[in-house]
This record gives sequence, C-alpha cells and structure tokens, in this order.
Amino acid sequence: MGMMDHTASISTATPLDLLRSEMRRRALDGFVVPRADEHQGEYVPPSAKRLAWLTGFTGSAGVAVVLDDAAAVFSDGRYTLQVREEVDTDRFETRHITDDPPSGWLRRMVSAGQRIGYDPWLHTPDDVRRMGDAVTAAGGELVACRDNPLDAVWPDRPDPPMSAASVYPVELSGRVGLDKRREVAAVLERDGEDAAVLTLPDSIAWLLNVRGRDLPCTPVVLSFAVVYRDASVDWFVEAEKVGAEVRAHLDSGVRVRLREDFVPVLQEIGAHGGAVRVDPASVPAAVTDILRASGAKISRGGDPTLLPKACKNAVELDGFRRAHRHDAVALARFLAWFDAHGAGLTEKDLSDRLLECRREQPGFVGPSFPTIAGAGPNGAIVHYHVRPETARILNRGEVFLLDSGAHYREGTTDVTRTLAVGEVEPEIRRNFTLVLQGNIDLALAVFPKGTTGSQLDALARRWLWAAGLDYDHGTGHGVGAFLSVHEGPQRIGKAPNMVALAPGMVVSDEPGYYKTGAYGIRIENLLAVRTVEGGERPMLGFEALTLVPVDRRLVVAEMLLPEQRDWLNAYHARVAEVVGPLLDPATASWLAEATRPI
Amino acid sequence: MGMMDHTASISTATPLDLLRSEMRRRALDGFVVPRADEHQGEYVPPSAKRLAWLTGFTGSAGVAVVLDDAAAVFSDGRYTLQVREEVDTDRFETRHITDDPPSGWLRRMVSAGQRIGYDPWLHTPDDVRRMGDAVTAAGGELVACRDNPLDAVWPDRPDPPMSAASVYPVELSGRVGLDKRREVAAVLERDGEDAAVLTLPDSIAWLLNVRGRDLPCTPVVLSFAVVYRDASVDWFVEAEKVGAEVRAHLDSGVRVRLREDFVPVLQEIGAHGGAVRVDPASVPAAVTDILRASGAKISRGGDPTLLPKACKNAVELDGFRRAHRHDAVALARFLAWFDAHGAGLTEKDLSDRLLECRREQPGFVGPSFPTIAGAGPNGAIVHYHVRPETARILNRGEVFLLDSGAHYREGTTDVTRTLAVGEVEPEIRRNFTLVLQGNIDLALAVFPKGTTGSQLDALARRWLWAAGLDYDHGTGHGVGAFLSVHEGPQRIGKAPNMVALAPGMVVSDEPGYYKTGAYGIRIENLLAVRTVEGGERPMLGFEALTLVPVDRRLVVAEMLLPEQRDWLNAYHARVAEVVGPLLDPATASWLAEATRPI
Repeated sequence: MGMMDHTASISTATPLDLLRSEMRRRALDGFVVPRADEHQGEYVPPSAKRLAWLTGFTGSAGVAVVLDDAAAVFSDGRYTLQVREEVDTDRFETRHITDDPPSGWLRRMVSAGQRIGYDPWLHTPDDVRRMGDAVTAAGGELVACRDNPLDAVWPDRPDPPMSAASVYPVELSGRVGLDKRREVAAVLERDGEDAAVLTLPDSIAWLLNVRGRDLPCTPVVLSFAVVYRDASVDWFVEAEKVGAEVRAHLDSGVRVRLREDFVPVLQEIGAHGGAVRVDPASVPAAVTDILRASGAKISRGGDPTLLPKACKNAVELDGFRRAHRHDAVALARFLAWFDAHGAGLTEKDLSDRLLECRREQPGFVGPSFPTIAGAGPNGAIVHYHVRPETARILNRGEVFLLDSGAHYREGTTDVTRTLAVGEVEPEIRRNFTLVLQGNIDLALAVFPKGTTGSQLDALARRWLWAAGLDYDHGTGHGVGAFLSVHEGPQRIGKAPNMVALAPGMVVSDEPGYYKTGAYGIRIENLLAVRTVEGGERPMLGFEALTLVPVDRRLVVAEMLLPEQRDWLNAYHARVAEVVGPLLDPATASWLAEATRPI
Repeated sequence: MGMMDHTASISTATPLDLLRSEMRRRALDGFVVPRADEHQGEYVPPSAKRLAWLTGFTGSAGVAVVLDDAAAVFSDGRYTLQVREEVDTDRFETRHITDDPPSGWLRRMVSAGQRIGYDPWLHTPDDVRRMGDAVTAAGGELVACRDNPLDAVWPDRPDPPMSAASVYPVELSGRVGLDKRREVAAVLERDGEDAAVLTLPDSIAWLLNVRGRDLPCTPVVLSFAVVYRDASVDWFVEAEKVGAEVRAHLDSGVRVRLREDFVPVLQEIGAHGGAVRVDPASVPAAVTDILRASGAKISRGGDPTLLPKACKNAVELDGFRRAHRHDAVALARFLAWFDAHGAGLTEKDLSDRLLECRREQPGFVGPSFPTIAGAGPNGAIVHYHVRPETARILNRGEVFLLDSGAHYREGTTDVTRTLAVGEVEPEIRRNFTLVLQGNIDLALAVFPKGTTGSQLDALARRWLWAAGLDYDHGTGHGVGAFLSVHEGPQRIGKAPNMVALAPGMVVSDEPGYYKTGAYGIRIENLLAVRTVEGGERPMLGFEALTLVPVDRRLVVAEMLLPEQRDWLNAYHARVAEVVGPLLDPATASWLAEATRPI
C-alpha cells in the first residue's frame, strides 16, 4: 500500500523533481550526476544509467549538475545534436563539456553558503578537486554523499548485473594468474608499495584470467580487487558471480571476498600505514578518501596491469590471428553478398547481415562495439550509430563506411572498410587513396624502440595534409585480448602520449576523411607491434592482423608509391592465401577477384 | 701591500680551497656553483664563468656542488670525456647530471644539521625546490646567500661586460618597440596581470629593438626589464651601455633605469599587491623570492615575448632572406675553394677559411655559434669543437661535416653540409641519401595549423628508421632574427613540445647520422613557416631560407622518390638562379656544376 501511494505520488513528478525533493530532504542545494559508474569505463550497466534516467541523455560521456533552480547537461561535440533531441531543454541547459565545463558553470551558478553534493564513487579525485575548487570559489561547499540521493528516489532502478564469471583458460591467456600477479608484485616491490587497488574490470579480468557478461561489448564482471606485494589478491565480487569452475581455477593466492569487504580491507591496509598504489585516471575518489582517512600512503603510480596487459604474449597473439581468420571469413561472406545485393538496402539491413555472417563463426561471442554503418552522408558522422527509424538506404554512386568488430574467445577484432556502390566520383577515389596511403605508410613504419604512437601519427596523415585535408580523430587505439576493444595505455594520435609502443601491443591503424553532408572514408586494420631484426639499434614494426580486402575499385593505382603498391598487393595475396581456403566456392571466387594485384 | 700579501697567500691555494675557507667563514657546510648566470642563457660572460674558475670545466652546461670534505661536478653526455680532461678528479667527483643528479648526491652526502648555500640569482625556483627537497630530506638546510661567496674569493674576477647597446632600426625589425610592447601588454591584460619580468637578454633586445655585444655569438646586452600592462617598460641596465643614439631611439614609454633599481621596483610592485608574470623556465629564484616576500601575486605564465619574437614579420623574413644570400655567397666561395684545396688541410684551416669568406660579406657581424668542423671520425662527435692542438687533417675518401652560421645585421644563418673528399664508400653515400630524404620530406611537409614540431619529427627520421638507423639529437630548433641562433618556444624533436608551428617561425631542419669512430653526416637548412593556400583547412608549410648546394656526389639518385628528386633539383635551380649572379666567374662556374640536376 505504502508502495502504491509512493508510485502514485511520483507519477507526475519527473526524475528531476524527485532528485530535487531528495536534495532538499538532505539539505543539499545541488547534486552532480555523471555518466560514469565506479569503474570509469566506456559502458555502464542499466543500474548505473543515472544520467539517462535523470535527463534522457544516452550518450557515452557526460555529466549533469542539478541545482534548486537550474540544471545543465554537459556533453562533448559528438553529442551536440543528440543531447538536444533527448533532453528536455526547458528544464536542462545543454553545454559543451570542454568549452564550457561543469566547473565554470558551478563557479557562476552556486551561491555563497550552498552545499553541493556528489557521489565519491563516481568521480576521480582530480574531478572532485576541480569541482571543489569551483564550488569553494563561489563560496559554497562540495559535499561527498555517503549514499547516492538519486538512487534513493529512482523507482524500479534495475538490479546491478550479476553475470557468472567464466574461466579464461591458459590455453588462450598464455600465462597463469600467479605469473601475472608476480609481475605486478615486482612493480610494487620496485616502487616500495604494499598494494595496488584495481577498479577497472578489464584489469581484474586480465589478472585473474576470468571473463564475464556484466556489460555490453566488454566481456567482464564488475568487481574490485587489491593486489599485494606478496602476489596475492583480494577479489571483491558478489558470490553469485563466482561459480565452482572459477573457484577451482583460481589458485590459493586469490581470496574471493564479499564486495562489502572492499572498504574494510582498504581501512585495514591504511591502519597498518600501507603504501597503496592507485591509478589517478580511474580510481574513485571514495577509495582515496578512505585510504587517506585510515592512514594509508597513496601513490599515484597508475594501474600496474595496463602495460603487461597491453603487451600480448605469443599465445594471445596467436589467438588474435585465429580470431582474425574467423572474422575474415565472415567479412568475405558479407562483402561478396554486399557486392551483389547491397545497393538499395538500409544501413540496418546491412549491419544485421554482417552480424549474421559473424554469428556463423566458431568462437564468436558478440560485437566488440556497436557497428558504425554509414551510407553516403551518414559516413561523414564519425560516431554515427544506426537507429532503425533513421536508417538510410544505400544508393548507387555512394560509398558505405562500415566499422565493426567482434569478440571471439581467442581475441578481438575491429575493422573498417569503405565500400563503393557502383561508380563513384573521382574525388572520392582520390581521397580514398590518400587515406589508404596513410594507412599503408603506418603499417610499413619501422621505428626505434622507445617511439610513441604520437610520434608516428603524422605518417598516417601526411598524404591527406599534402592535399589540404585532415581528420579529427585519433589514428590508433590499443585493443584488448577478448577484453575492451579500446585499451590503453598506448595510443596513436596528435595528442602527446608518453607510452612507447612495445612488442605484442595491438593497435588500430585507422586514418579517415569526412566530407560533411557528402561522404565518409575510413580504412582500419589492426596491427601487432613486432621486433624488426637487423637494425643498428633495436627496431620495431607492425604485423597486420586484419585480413579483409581493401576495395580495389576505390584505389587510384597511379597515386601509390611503388612500396605502397607492393604492400597492398602483398597484403591482398596474403588475404587470398590465408582466407581463400576457408571459404565456400562462391565466396572464394569473389575473394580471388577482390584480391587481384593492382 | 695588503694586496700583495693576499696574492702571496693564495698562490698555493686552489679555487676550491678558497671557496671552502669562505664557506667556513660564513658558517656554510656546502655551496652550489652552477654554470648558469642570472640570464640562464647558452653563453655566460667571463665574469660569470664561476664553474670554470672553480673546477676548470668549460662546458656549456653543468653544476658543481662543494661540501667540506667532498665535491662533485655534474655534466651531461656531451661532456663526459671533456670533464675528465679538464677537472682535477682527485678533488672533484664527476657525475652525469641526469643519471646521477645533484639532488641525489646532496641527499646522500649532506649530514643532518648542515647548511648548504646557493646564489638565488643563478637558479630557477624549480631548481631550488629540487635542491631544497634533497637537502631537507638529508636533515640539512638550503640557504640562499645574499652575495655569492665564490665571487668574494675570486681574485682578478673579470669585470662584467659593458658593451654599448646599439639601435636595431625599424627597417630591420619591422615593428616599432611601442607596437611590440602593446602586443605584450594585451597578453597581460588578457591574463589579468599587472607586469611581466623579463630576464632573458634576447627577449629584451627584441622588445626594445636594441642589440649589443655582451656575449659571444649572441648580439645582446645583459640587463633586466619589467613590462607593464600600460605597455610601458622599466629597463634596468648599466648607464654606460645606453648611449645617446639608443636613448633617442627609445620612446617615452621606456624608462632607462639603474640596474640597482631592479630589486626595489620588484618590491614596490609587490607592495601594491601586483600580479606579476614570470617564466618558470628562466626566472631567477631571487626574483620570485623578492616578489613573494613583498606581497606580489606570481603567475607562471611564461615569457610573453617568446611567441611574438618567434613569429618573424615580413620585414624580418626579408632580412633573413638577404642574410642567407650573403651567407650563400660566402659558402659558395668556400665550397669552390674546398673542392680544389680542402684535402690535406686541418679542420682548423678549413673553419678559418670559412670565416674569412663570411667576413667579406656586407653586414657580417660574427659567427652565430662556434663552428663544428669534423673530418672523418670527428664528424661523428655531435658537439665536436675544433681545438688547434687536436685539429685533424682531412683525408681523401672521408666526409667532412661542417656546421656553421653567422649573424648579419639583417638576420642569422645556421647551415650544415657534409662534403665528400674524393671517392667515398657506398655505405656513406647510402646513409647520406637517407639523411637527405628526411631533410627533404620535412621541407616538403604540409600540415594543418596547430601542428607542433614534435608531430613532424618522424618525417625527418623515417628513411633512416627503415634502414635500422637513427640520430640522438633534435631535428630542428628555432632561430632568432639577429639574436640567439637557438630560440624557442617551438622545436622539432622526439620530445613532446606543445607549441604549434606558426607562420613566420624560422626553424632548422637537420637530420643526421653518426657512425662512431668512422664518420658523421648532417644536412641542415633553415626553413621559414609559411601559409599554404587552397586547402580545405588552414594549412602551413615551409620555405627554404638556406641557399647552399647539397653535395651531389654523395646522393644516390636512384634512392630518391620522384618528389624528392624534384625538390632537390628545384632547390639547386633556385640556388643557381639567386646566388649565381652574385659570384665571381670562377665560383659561378663551380656553382653551375654543383647545382646541375640529378
């Protein structure tokens, strides 16, 4: 009955109204609602979609700030249009998160004496410092909330995900957990630390050799962990997630503990005066608050699993190669069908068909990210996602930009091809070739040990630059081994990144060109960093993992340098040799044509 | 008589002994002696060569730390050999300044309760903080010395330089001082600052349109200045340096003040609570100490003249072009003579001859840095400087690396050529061509506005990288307009640099290759950044200022890409066209041959 009354009373109240009355109940004048959850990842489970519940905004990055008499949603350039479609702009201002950030808005809008709340589990310490500086400058006070006031008034809030963890066997991971933990422990030993807090689900999945299904597109369970200098681990995870098989797989150095024990264990480490390593880029402020309050010494050394996780071992690289062979079969089947039947279908039809082709492959688990399938002008929207109601029909004379990927048990793929539908304009072919030249030059690069992705970025852009063109995204991101398709710490892009490329790292090579309102071009392969012998110094280079033909009809052969043409022909010869024998006769004959030398 | 006694008593005491007794007199247990003076520049006048007087070490970077019972000289990799030759290693340890820095040495060597002195005019605040942390960690105290104890015991210390400042006329500078000061004042206005302290002599020279002769190779007077938000300047400079002509040239917004007034003026600004901008990279700690103590708000915004000084205006660029024509005539005359007579002469003979050729040119002022003239294996020593006693004879079959430059009233040059003497091995020609390909690719680069030198660096290296080779120095530095030949804030190199290249900046393009014990190769042109029209976005590129033939005999023509060969032939055609008519017939005929197409 009480429940019924409650439901009735809220039926006309919006989430914003509900949050505001809860704020008043707690004597708060404001509250900050980020898109992030405790794990600061790309995806959050339905139970953590607080920003979407409150504002309607479903983008993958953003934050809302609610005051008694004003509210704003902050998002980045990718979502400028979407945020206005999804959010009630009578009740929420919409702001650009970097040009007009929440800190500046707080500084302007907060009045002296006001108390602005935040949930310290959902923000990093640097976030909190920035907000705190702003609120303090305005004469207010930033207040950490012990429990989240929004959660208290969110009716029918979904339950947190509770997927069962699964074993990721050493036949695929290449290293037993103990071996990985010893490597991490050696870092702690070297840096004089007693423990490291891990809050990134893929770090924990890598370290323990487990996977899960708590999130879309990222095969992890949500949990926390603490690694100690003796190479043991406390894993804080709901008991339901850890079945008998996983328990049997974990050695005695991994203690499975209740999620509720996480905070007491942090306090205990602090009480012993332990030195604790955290990653300032992702640690919740709650964790550093608790550590500091209990007496721990905090070291901002970063997540110690990032670098070893990024450098794939020989078994993982073999897995990547097998996953890419499966994916190449799926893509070849899709592309052969596309050439015959693609024109006139919608973006949705096409991406559904691609998913079907992947589902047929052994070891396929699911997409590694939502497919970007942009026909004609939609290809120029860099973060375009098909929605059934807006899916465009692909016309002759256009190009189709298709960026997709899959998780297989052995590894993860991410491939973009730009496909001609009938005859396309010479301008498109010219710009496609400039993009291809950059893609090939990066793939061909040889560079000394110690070189970062920032240093190589220009190699992928210089052909476009010479024509007065460029693209506004990075050139390459790291890719996890049946983990996150976007993985650090290395990155190829214009912004400085201090992490050197190292053997075994997998990175994407994806230059592009986008003409607003007209067409988009991107060509993406995954590359594995390998050593190159014979140099005067230790040198590195790349091995192409992706085995999918580049649309020859879009290549202006005369523009290619001899070494670029040689690379393309050798690449296509390898695709034909490796993938051809795995195909049905009709697809094999399509592939033979698609991989002819130019 | 007293004087005679003093001299007699010190005749057996070394500088180290003298400093130690002065330390004891002042109750200091240690003292730090850097190579730097108050202006943190590349050159110091004889009066500031404290490190050389104390230790014998004459390198351009380093520091000594003297304790009662130990002393060490710290220098970088360029000087590893030299420091051991010059310094009495029985009395001074020699250390690598980055691998084993003074802070670590202080931490190990200082005992609890010890007082370590330093001269706050000779260190930046960050330097002082690092030293202070180390000394405090060891239980000691770092003490700022009001006057320098070393100066107190340095007999016959040279007088500070007292060159007369000269007018740099608007016909050469392109902008009157008031206009430049208004630009700086607008930066202060924007950033809410009342004044900026300038301590870099070339910043002051640029701002006031004056030059001087207080230092070798850099045409400046040593002085300090404060620029105010109203675009006026206090210039703190010895009266002897400012003659009637300069006084007449300065408008009423420039107040020539005694150097002794510098500190009182800083204190006065502080007493008014002024916000003062300093450059943390170069400001003496004494300045920030005085400002802070007197109540000023310190803003670490950087020297506001650096960026406008780096972006040469049209008049300055024209001056650079004229200077490079003069320099090209000198180089052509030298190179023609070198081809006929170079073999068998010493590095010293050759660099003397080059200087003679430059002296004949109108407007020649002096070298812009000490010539690097390395024959055969000496070319592989990146910072090699000829000393008469060690000058090597140039043999047939070797290459000669010649890196030199000059100041002309209109502008500054810096050019490196690597020259064949007779037939050289194919390996040298191959590696020369790889270096040349990088040099050309950088010169050919087109890139979007906002691109930094760090982003372009790989273009100059990738041909070497592909062959397993590299070089251990930057690719390009800025060059001042009849100012310092090494000028910031932009830089082309592996290390991240956040300053975008902008139209009018002059940078060197100088990839190289060095085979220890065998030979060195470097090819250096100066380039001016220019806008490139016709792009979809605002694009930039380069104009080559240097007009000196590249040794065709070292080029393996078949290795060049068509666009590289075209660039080289067009470059040589331009050299022939511009420089040829300025030459005597014999040199002109040499140049015609040296610039034939390949």
